[in-house]
Amino acid sequence: MEDNKVVLLNWRASQFAMRVRIALAEKGIKYESKDEQNLLINKSHELLEANPIHKKVPVLIHEGKPICESLIIVEYIDEVWHDKSPLLPSDPYQRSQARFWADYIDKKTMEKVLGDKHFFGGDTNIGFVDVALVPFTSWFYTYETWGNFSIEAECPKLIDWAKRCLEKESVANSLPHPHKIYEYSFELKKKLEN
Amino acid sequence: MEDNKVVLLNWRASQFAMRVRIALAEKGIKYESKDEQNLLINKSHELLEANPIHKKVPVLIHEGKPICESLIIVEYIDEVWHDKSPLLPSDPYQRSQARFWADYIDKKTMEKVLGDKHFFGGDTNIGFVDVALVPFTSWFYTYETWGNFSIEAECPKLIDWAKRCLEKESVANSLPHPHKIYEYSFELKKKLEN
Repeated sequence: MEDNKVVLLNWRASQFAMRVRIALAEKGIKYESKDEQNLLINKSHELLEANPIHKKVPVLIHEGKPICESLIIVEYIDEVWHDKSPLLPSDPYQRSQARFWADYIDKKTMEKVLGDKHFFGGDTNIGFVDVALVPFTSWFYTYETWGNFSIEAECPKLIDWAKRCLEKESVANSLPHPHKIYEYSFELKKKLEN
Repeated sequence: MEDNKVVLLNWRASQFAMRVRIALAEKGIKYESKDEQNLLINKSHELLEANPIHKKVPVLIHEGKPICESLIIVEYIDEVWHDKSPLLPSDPYQRSQARFWADYIDKKTMEKVLGDKHFFGGDTNIGFVDVALVPFTSWFYTYETWGNFSIEAECPKLIDWAKRCLEKESVANSLPHPHKIYEYSFELKKKLEN
């Protein structure tokens, strides 16, 4: 393995892995994606070795060293590749607020926090909180279908925001199509019922 | 209120407030401590206003703006007062590791992670993980007394580490005496039983 190679232990449907994929895309970082095919049934040896504590994706392996936990990975990416697309603001107070909301992520509250801004990160660019939150929207279709309710009716601003995020290439290319997630969840349900 | 004043909404027995008190002490920052006297019975108006989401101490108010969540506050302090006693390492990978363990804090595991180092932060100075973990040790006496077991027997290295931390003035002056915590917990139990 090349020393400066970036590898992502990944699972397409994981909202936490999506956060990392978006951050890598925002920074324009080339990486090798290793998909855990049967994550809930059988974890790869590489994953168990790279994340012995939590045994979960995503894990970013950079220069041969594993980094775990999605928001910690996103901060790491922001720090190492700091020249392009900053995800955390440079002002310490603004940084603390971004971390607070990324930590708190909850759609009801987030609807209020967004206010009239285009993105949580500001009016033109996505930031740390957008990266932390937007992956959850790719599961909305599945929640709505299983749960028979409309998120748009409850949180219209958040749905508008999600659409704006999806106009960004970094987001669109990093999230699976909501129908794909529904298929995953359907297959998973069948497997777990067997 | 002076604009650059530092205020801590505090509670002596809170491990999370202790983290912030240590960080402030390490940096040598003067601050006004506002103690919540009856935290579990009756929260102050100021606390409810400063932390409407979680309604919990600690809250740091700096230049009139509130920052919540202990580890986010510690990072904020480290960023604003960056010239003295760095708490997070400067290397991004080492930073990610410190954040991982601070996030994970668990005494059993931490016993292994410490290894032969004097402090989690290194051999001479305390760092982010030490600040995150050491407040919990001030409750050990209470846990042991109520629970009738010995933490030292189970985690001897951790107890040695805690003693080394307590030799630091920033730590010793920021943590209440373990007997004081036991008194708090005793009073609290009585109040909650009434």
